[in-house]
Amino acid sequence: MRLALSLGRRGMGRVWPNPAVGCVIVQGDIIVGRGRTADGGRPHAEPVALGQAEDRARGATAYVTLEPCAHFGKTPPCANALIEAGVARVVIACTDPDPRVSGQGIAMLRAAGITVDVGLCEAEAQRDHAGFFGRITNNRPWVTLKLACTLDGRIATATGESQWITGPEARRMVHAQRARHDAVMVGAGTVRADDPSLTVRDMGVDRQPVRVVVSRQMDLPTDCTLTRTARDIPVWVCNAASDTQVAPWVDAGAVSLPCAVTDGQIDVTSALAALAQNGLTRVFCEGGGALAASLLQADCVDELVVFTAGMGIGAEGLAGLGPMGISHLSDAPRFDLIEVTPVGADIMSRWQRR
Amino acid sequence: MRLALSLGRRGMGRVWPNPAVGCVIVQGDIIVGRGRTADGGRPHAEPVALGQAEDRARGATAYVTLEPCAHFGKTPPCANALIEAGVARVVIACTDPDPRVSGQGIAMLRAAGITVDVGLCEAEAQRDHAGFFGRITNNRPWVTLKLACTLDGRIATATGESQWITGPEARRMVHAQRARHDAVMVGAGTVRADDPSLTVRDMGVDRQPVRVVVSRQMDLPTDCTLTRTARDIPVWVCNAASDTQVAPWVDAGAVSLPCAVTDGQIDVTSALAALAQNGLTRVFCEGGGALAASLLQADCVDELVVFTAGMGIGAEGLAGLGPMGISHLSDAPRFDLIEVTPVGADIMSRWQRR
Repeated sequence: MRLALSLGRRGMGRVWPNPAVGCVIVQGDIIVGRGRTADGGRPHAEPVALGQAEDRARGATAYVTLEPCAHFGKTPPCANALIEAGVARVVIACTDPDPRVSGQGIAMLRAAGITVDVGLCEAEAQRDHAGFFGRITNNRPWVTLKLACTLDGRIATATGESQWITGPEARRMVHAQRARHDAVMVGAGTVRADDPSLTVRDMGVDRQPVRVVVSRQMDLPTDCTLTRTARDIPVWVCNAASDTQVAPWVDAGAVSLPCAVTDGQIDVTSALAALAQNGLTRVFCEGGGALAASLLQADCVDELVVFTAGMGIGAEGLAGLGPMGISHLSDAPRFDLIEVTPVGADIMSRWQRR
Repeated sequence: MRLALSLGRRGMGRVWPNPAVGCVIVQGDIIVGRGRTADGGRPHAEPVALGQAEDRARGATAYVTLEPCAHFGKTPPCANALIEAGVARVVIACTDPDPRVSGQGIAMLRAAGITVDVGLCEAEAQRDHAGFFGRITNNRPWVTLKLACTLDGRIATATGESQWITGPEARRMVHAQRARHDAVMVGAGTVRADDPSLTVRDMGVDRQPVRVVVSRQMDLPTDCTLTRTARDIPVWVCNAASDTQVAPWVDAGAVSLPCAVTDGQIDVTSALAALAQNGLTRVFCEGGGALAASLLQADCVDELVVFTAGMGIGAEGLAGLGPMGISHLSDAPRFDLIEVTPVGADIMSRWQRR
C-alpha cells in the first residue's frame, strides 16, 4: 500500500478534477502491475495496473489508495474492471465520499465474491485525497499557504523590495510545491507588485498549474506576464468586478469566476467554492499578505509552508500576514509542526491545521 | 581539547568578568586532572586541574582552552603554576588578547623549557571566549538576542496578550539559555508590559544572571518584581535619566549605569560598553521589539535564538522587531543558520552574525 500511495502522489497536481490514486497488483510475492491516475484524470489507476498485470491479475491482490469507482463516467467503473480481471482480493486504503461511489464500489466487489479489506494506511490516504474529498463534500479544495519571509515575518521592505529574500534552494522547492498542486493562487497586490508568471520552472514538468488571481475589482495591469501567457497556461480570475472591468483579462484568454464580497474583499470561501466547482482539488497560495490573512481568518488553510531567511527588516517592512482582527491569542489560528529542515541558507517548516 | 572546551562551557554565565576556561591534564593515556574557571572567576581552570593531578602533573601534557595568564591579579599567574608543577607540554586552543597576557603566558612557558602548541580547536575556543574577548578588545559583551514569536513574527496581540505564545519546552530552553549568560537584558516596554522576574527557574541553578533594564527616562513602575528582588539578585538599569528619576530603583537596590542617548533612545553601543566595563561578557537580550531592533541596527547581535510558534496573529500584532529604518534588502542584517530543531510544539532556530 505504501508503494500505491507513493505512485498516487506522483499524480498530484496533474489529475484534477480526479483524485490522485495509486494501485499495485500483487500475485504471490511478485508485483505484477502498478498504476496511478493518469495526467488529466483518465485512465484511472486500476485499469493502468490491470493492463500491466494482464493474465497475472487472476487470483491476485490489488492494493488501491481509494475505493474503486462504481459508476459509468468518462471511463467504465473500475470495480467492474477488477471483477473482470478475476482478482481475488482488493485492499483499499479509504472509502470514497463521492456520492456516486461511496461504498458501492466495495459492495460491487463483494457481490462478485472478492475479499475486500478497507483501512490500510487510511490516515495517509485520507490526507493525500483530502483535496478531492474537500472538493466533493465541502465545496473547497485543499489549500497550502506559502510564506517566504524574514526572521521577523516580513516579505518586502517598505519600498517594496522583495527579491530575493529567500535563496535559490528555497525558490526551487517552491517550484516543486507548485508542481504538486492543481493551481497557484495570488492576490491582486502580488500581481501589481511582482508581475509574476506563477509557472513551474526548471523541474522538467510538462504540465503547468492553473494560475489563479483573486481581485475584487480587477484593478490590475492589463499587459503583464499573466495576460500575455493566458492562452498557453490557464489564468482564472476570482473577481466581483463588472464585465467591463474583467474584459481586458477575458479578452487575453483568462477565465472570469464571479465571487461574493465580504467586508469589501472577495469572500475567500466563495472564491474557493468557485475553484472547487471548476474542478480544482489542490491550491497553492503564495500570498500576498492580505489574501493569506483572509484565508487564515476563514480557517481555510490546510497546510502552511514557511520559508524563513536569516535576516531582519524591522517593523516598517511589509508583513507576510495582513490584518486579521485578532485581539486574543485564543482566537489565533494554530498549526502543528509536520517537518522543519534547512533549505540552503533558509529554513523550511511545514505545519498542518490543528 | 574537546573535553577541555566542554568543561569550560560549564562555566558560562558563572565566571564573569573572567573567561570560562577549561583545562585537562593528561599523563600518558590517562586524564589526571580536569578543571574549569570556578564560579565567580577564581580559581582559574589550570590550578583546579593541577590540584587534581598533584604529582602526576610532572611530565604531563596540559590542554587549555585559552592562553594561561601571565600576570599577578587576584590569583598568581597560571603560567607559573604550570611551570612549577613540571608539565612537559601545554596545548593551547587560542591566545588571550588581554594586554596583560597576550603572548606573555606562552613566552613564560617556553622560557621554562615547556613545549607549547597553539591553535587546536581554535575556532571553537574563539567562539566560546568571544564574550570575554569582546569585553577586553571591543568594550562590549557577546550578545545573544532571543525572539519568541508567531509564524508571522509577532510577539503579542494588539491588546498585549503574549503569554504564552511558545510552549513550556521552549520556555524551559529559554531558562537554560539565561543560565549560560552573565546577564538577561530587556527594554523598558517589556518591564511595563510583563513585569518579568528574568530569573533562571527550575534548572537547579544556584547562580542567577544580572537583570539589565534599558530605559532612557526610567518611566518604569517603582513597585514591580525587579525592584522587589533587586537586593537578592542584581538589577542594573542602563539609563539617561535624572538622579531623581533613577532614585526609586537605586533605593530598591538597583545599580544605575548612565548611558548616552542617540535619536531619543539609549545608545545601545554605550549601554553595552557600560555592561562590559562592569565585567559582563555574555548578555542574553529578550526584547522587546524596540531594543531588539536597536541592537540589530547597531550590528551588536552575535547570535539570534528564535522560537517560532505554530500560529498567526496578523499585522495588528506587536512586531518582534521594531522599526529599523531599512528600505533596501541589502541593508538588512543577515545571519547564518547554526541549528534548527523542533522544541515541543515550536521550532527553535539559532543564527550567527554573518
